[in-house]
Amino acid sequence: MKPISGGVTAALGFNAAGIHCGVKAGSLPSKKDLALIACETRCAAAGVFTLNKVKAAPVILSNSHLTDGAASAVIVNSGNANACAPREEENALIMAELTANGLGIPITDVLVASTGVIGQQLNTAAITNGFSKLLSALGKNSSDAAEALMTTDTYKKEYALEYAHGGKTIKIGGICKGSGMIHPNMGTLLCIITTDAAINPDLLNKALHEAVRVSLNRISVDGDTSTNDSCFILASGLSGAEKIDAEDEAYAAFQHALKTLCIHFARLLAADGEGACRLITCVTSGAPDELTAEILGKAVISSSLVKAAIFGADANVGRVLCAMGYSGAEFDLEKVAVTFTSSAGSIAVCHKGKGLVFDEDLAEKILSEKEITIDINLYSGNHSATCWGCDLTYDYVKINGDYRS
Amino acid sequence: MKPISGGVTAALGFNAAGIHCGVKAGSLPSKKDLALIACETRCAAAGVFTLNKVKAAPVILSNSHLTDGAASAVIVNSGNANACAPREEENALIMAELTANGLGIPITDVLVASTGVIGQQLNTAAITNGFSKLLSALGKNSSDAAEALMTTDTYKKEYALEYAHGGKTIKIGGICKGSGMIHPNMGTLLCIITTDAAINPDLLNKALHEAVRVSLNRISVDGDTSTNDSCFILASGLSGAEKIDAEDEAYAAFQHALKTLCIHFARLLAADGEGACRLITCVTSGAPDELTAEILGKAVISSSLVKAAIFGADANVGRVLCAMGYSGAEFDLEKVAVTFTSSAGSIAVCHKGKGLVFDEDLAEKILSEKEITIDINLYSGNHSATCWGCDLTYDYVKINGDYRS
Repeated sequence: MKPISGGVTAALGFNAAGIHCGVKAGSLPSKKDLALIACETRCAAAGVFTLNKVKAAPVILSNSHLTDGAASAVIVNSGNANACAPREEENALIMAELTANGLGIPITDVLVASTGVIGQQLNTAAITNGFSKLLSALGKNSSDAAEALMTTDTYKKEYALEYAHGGKTIKIGGICKGSGMIHPNMGTLLCIITTDAAINPDLLNKALHEAVRVSLNRISVDGDTSTNDSCFILASGLSGAEKIDAEDEAYAAFQHALKTLCIHFARLLAADGEGACRLITCVTSGAPDELTAEILGKAVISSSLVKAAIFGADANVGRVLCAMGYSGAEFDLEKVAVTFTSSAGSIAVCHKGKGLVFDEDLAEKILSEKEITIDINLYSGNHSATCWGCDLTYDYVKINGDYRS
Repeated sequence: MKPISGGVTAALGFNAAGIHCGVKAGSLPSKKDLALIACETRCAAAGVFTLNKVKAAPVILSNSHLTDGAASAVIVNSGNANACAPREEENALIMAELTANGLGIPITDVLVASTGVIGQQLNTAAITNGFSKLLSALGKNSSDAAEALMTTDTYKKEYALEYAHGGKTIKIGGICKGSGMIHPNMGTLLCIITTDAAINPDLLNKALHEAVRVSLNRISVDGDTSTNDSCFILASGLSGAEKIDAEDEAYAAFQHALKTLCIHFARLLAADGEGACRLITCVTSGAPDELTAEILGKAVISSSLVKAAIFGADANVGRVLCAMGYSGAEFDLEKVAVTFTSSAGSIAVCHKGKGLVFDEDLAEKILSEKEITIDINLYSGNHSATCWGCDLTYDYVKINGDYRS
C-alpha cells in the first residue's frame, strides 16, 4: 500500500471539478463553493450520515438515493448548509436535477451535500447559473473540488493510496472538509471517497461503516454534531480486479486500505479543527474491551479543559483523569498510568491514579510541539482505541464569535 | 420571602471564618484559602455530590459523614482539590480531625471540601498551622468564608433570604463558588447552605435534591463535571418554628425558599463562568414533559458554538437548532419557534423550524447586553425548564491555558 496523487480522482473512472458560483453573497470570486465528483460508470455506493435529529435536506435526499446501493455523482456546495432553511427540500432537489440532467443520469444516482451556515435560504440561482461552468471543468481536478468544500478549513484535504491484490492495482482516494461542529457520533463532516475496486454494495456499506467507526467517528473539535455530516463512497469497479463479493482476503485488503485513508482524513480534520494549533492523539490501552477504551479517549479529546491546557502547553493530568471520570466508562483508577509524548520526548505524569511530580520544563517542551500524544494505560486488559482532537484556542472563539458574517 | 444580609451566617446558630493559610505555594497573603462554617448546635444535614467516577477524598469522606443525617461544621480549602493526589484520604481526615478537635465535636459531624488543582499533594502543614487563626476568627464572617472558597471566580458569592411561616421567621442562606469544570450532572461546584429551620434529615435531603435539580444541575460553563463538586445544607432548628416532619405546607414553604436560593446561586455561578462576559438563560417551553425541556435547554447552553456566537453577539439560530438536534430529546422541528431577548428588546429568529430573515442591527443590539435569554417554544405541551450558561470567550481559553501555575 502506498500514497499516490490524485485525491478523489485517483481511482479509475472518476472526474471532479470545483468552481466559484457565489453561493454566499459577497464571497470572494477566488473562493470556490461548488464541487462535482462524477464517475463515467454507475458505481456501488454507500454513505454514513449525521445522527443529529435535525437533518439537512441534502442528507435526507442522499440517504434516500442510496437505498439501491448505487450512485454515480456527488454535487456539493459550501457557504450554506441548506438546513432549517426555507424551501430546503426543493433546493436540494434542484441541485440533484441539475446534475442528473447535465450528466444524463437518473436523479436517484446523484448524491447531494451542503455545508455552511444553518437557517438561511440557499441561493440556488447562483448554483444554476454556475452549473455549466462546473460541468465543463470536469476532469482530474480533485484539488479544485477539495477547495470548493472548504468553510473554515485552513487547508484543503485530499489523499489517495493504492494497493495490489490478485495481480491488480486498486486505487482509493477522497476529499473532505471540517472544521467546526465536529463531534464523534456519526460520519462526521463531509467526506467523499472514490475507488475503482469492484465490490458489492452491501460489503461496501459494511466496509465504510467499519472504517468510519475507527476514524471519523473518533475525532472531536468542539462537541457539536452537525446537521449536515455525510461521508460517501463510490466504487467504480474499473480497476480490473475481481469483484469483492464475500468477506474474504480481498475484502480484508480493501477494508485495510479504506481504514488507512479514513484515519488519514481523521487526523487531518482534527489537526485543522477551528482555531487549532496542535493535534491531540489520545491512545487508550490496557482496556478490558475496545468500547471502554473508545469512551475514555473520546471524553479526553472532547474536554474543553484538556484542550485549553494543551493550548497552554500545561501538563495538567488532573483534567485528563477528571474527563475519564465523567466519561461513563468503568475503570480502576488505582491502576491508571498517563504519559504525555511528542517528538520532543515523553514524560510520565500519573502512576496508579495519582499525579506524579515531574520536570515542568521538560513537560512544557514536550507539549509545545504540533502533535501531542496522551497515552493512557488502564492495565486491565489488552484492548485499545485511538481518538483525535485539537487544542482550544483564542482563534476558535474568534472564528465562532461571528461566523455568519 | 425577602433577601437579607449575612450569607451563610444569616440563619440562627451559624458562624463562619475565612483566612489565608498558604495552601498553594506562592499565593498572595491577601488570597484567603481556608474557610470554616460551624453551628453552635448539632444540625440535620444533607449533601449532593459529583457523579464523576473519580471522586476526591473529601467527597467520599463527607458523604460517609452524612449517613446519619447530621453534621455541625464544614471546613473547606481552595488552591488544591485533594483529588488523584498522594495521601489524599489521610489529608482529608487531617482536615476533619483538626476541626473536630478545635470545636470539640465528633469527627463524623465534620464535612470537608477542597477545590483547586487536581493531582498534586495537599499542603496540610499550611492548614494545620493556620487552623488556630481560623478558629479564633469564627464569627459572622460569611464574606471571608465566601472569599476563601474562590478559585477562578471573579467575585464572591453569598446570599440569604427569610420567610415567615406559622408566625415564625425562618432564615436560609449560603455561599458558593464556581467557576470552571461546571456541567449539569450533579450538585455542581461547592455550595454550603445553612438554615435555622427545624426539619427531619430525610425531608432536608429530599428538599435539597429537588432544589439542586432545578438550579445547580441546570447550569454549564464548560461541559466538564468536576471531581470535587459538593453541595451541603445544615439545618440548626434554632428559628423556633415547628419542626418540619411531613410533606406539608411548612415543607412546601421551606422547599420554595431553598429553591429560590439555589436558583439565585445557579445564576451567579453561570454569570461568573470562567472568562464569561454574558449570562445565557435558556427557557424551553411548550414541551410535552419537563425532562424533554431540560435536555434541550442543557444542550443549548452547553454548546461551544452557541456560546461563542453569543460572545460575538451573533444571532446564529442555526446553532441553537443544531444543539437541540443532537441533544437526544424528541421534538417536532416543524413546530419550533426561537426568540432572543434581553433588556434591549426581543427578536424572533425561527418560526416552525425555519430560520427567519431579521433585523441584524437590532439582533446585535439585543445580544450585546449582559443577560441574554434564548426562548424556545416547542408548541407541543405545557411543560418548561430553565437552564443557565455563559458565553465562550478568549478569557476562558486564557484562564485554562495555564491554570496550574
